[in-house]
Amino acid sequence: MRIATLGPEGTFSHEAALKYDGKADLAFVNTIRDVFDMVSKGKAGLGIVPIENSIAGTVGQTLDFLMQFCLKIKAEEVLPINHYLVGFGAIGDIRHIYIHPQTFEQCELFIKKNMPKAEMIQTSSNGKSAEMLSKSKDKSKAAIIPKIAVDFYKLKVLKKDVQDNRFNVTRFFAISKDDAKKTGYDRTSIAVYPQVDRPGLLHEMLGHFAKNGINLTKIESRPSKGKLGDYIFYIDFQGHKSEKNVADALKKLEESAFVTLLGSYPRKY
Amino acid sequence: MRIATLGPEGTFSHEAALKYDGKADLAFVNTIRDVFDMVSKGKAGLGIVPIENSIAGTVGQTLDFLMQFCLKIKAEEVLPINHYLVGFGAIGDIRHIYIHPQTFEQCELFIKKNMPKAEMIQTSSNGKSAEMLSKSKDKSKAAIIPKIAVDFYKLKVLKKDVQDNRFNVTRFFAISKDDAKKTGYDRTSIAVYPQVDRPGLLHEMLGHFAKNGINLTKIESRPSKGKLGDYIFYIDFQGHKSEKNVADALKKLEESAFVTLLGSYPRKY
Repeated sequence: MRIATLGPEGTFSHEAALKYDGKADLAFVNTIRDVFDMVSKGKAGLGIVPIENSIAGTVGQTLDFLMQFCLKIKAEEVLPINHYLVGFGAIGDIRHIYIHPQTFEQCELFIKKNMPKAEMIQTSSNGKSAEMLSKSKDKSKAAIIPKIAVDFYKLKVLKKDVQDNRFNVTRFFAISKDDAKKTGYDRTSIAVYPQVDRPGLLHEMLGHFAKNGINLTKIESRPSKGKLGDYIFYIDFQGHKSEKNVADALKKLEESAFVTLLGSYPRKY
Repeated sequence: MRIATLGPEGTFSHEAALKYDGKADLAFVNTIRDVFDMVSKGKAGLGIVPIENSIAGTVGQTLDFLMQFCLKIKAEEVLPINHYLVGFGAIGDIRHIYIHPQTFEQCELFIKKNMPKAEMIQTSSNGKSAEMLSKSKDKSKAAIIPKIAVDFYKLKVLKKDVQDNRFNVTRFFAISKDDAKKTGYDRTSIAVYPQVDRPGLLHEMLGHFAKNGINLTKIESRPSKGKLGDYIFYIDFQGHKSEKNVADALKKLEESAFVTLLGSYPRKY
């Protein structure tokens, strides 16, 4: 199967795609919108996109595109995020670091402590950081990249695990034209756009889940593009859309809100 | 008063700082962590940091640093986000665009339609995009930047309002060692870390707000750094911590969760 994901080779998205299907035919594209576009137009059967990182939070674009493109979540994957400092000289020689801005956020303390005078050269992806360093061969240059990029570009590791937080994971969605069948250990994601605004409405809406014994695993309000303070709620909960208690909760929810089913898929945590 | 904000000159953070206090002595720093650091160490009396954008969503770092640095939210500011295409030649001449990755996200459709072959040169801030373009004077180069950067660097506008969504605003927090006194039209932000995990807990917690007639304006779950699926809830609601119904709701909430008060401050929307 053809899978679209964020490129070039050596990104965490690349790693997530391989984790989902090690034998897939991978198509590397530049933006999250491009991944959705490929799947929507049938140029790829599946797309891999990041949805949240434990440090940086939710990837807003992915949530918005799920609504816009009418695609479904077919699976989730969770990757530990470990960063590697690579280069050609010693750490003391480093003057310039190729680095993706999100990677910088995740390694800021390490860099400030160990290479306070190094200049950051911002790149558009972790794969790009590795590619640019591998072309330079200069001892004053380094990069901070994932293991998959270290291996792909055969770079020399100066220090492993340079991320500031020991716990750093990214959750990815596999998106497709259809979601997944019930396995008995599933999660469902929905978007809820309330049709009224009054104190207690969210409490009332969540009551439909509580009454049906459904455990929520994530909730997030996002401005609905209309005005600030007018929100869409993204909610993840345990269970599959084909189960009776889930169907009952969704039916009650629809009495006071527009509800979009983003997909039911097997749980990975 | 000295105010720390994200630099260099010409960023939306610069504009938000001027909106808060047009006569302030501004200190421009490189990262959100640096803003918190300046205020925490008393090197600035106030800091301006982005908290959410209507397209990109919440700035996770700002939420996390509010917890880590024990600073308070003293005010909010809401800025409309309009992007300007600037350069020295015609749109048809453009081959390279200096652009911040978030600005690219917000103008991706415009760029793909009008300059599909242009190469993106990623920068670390909108102010930097303007600075780099202003040094080049090359007709094949352009930048997409805020109005404040157009004015500061006296650049030529090729097209106004090139952002893809008509509605695009960013909300900023002014952070300080203390929050604000009651005005009668206030908002309060809290972080809630539940001490148990069972279906219906969030519903139960929100019930304390509903019973006290308090309107929630934002809710977001973020992984608590411990493990994925173990969440902290960030909640904004209408009212001031000194009001009786707010104090009552918070007291009930504390029976099943650790609650951190991030600040009470005047509402701007």
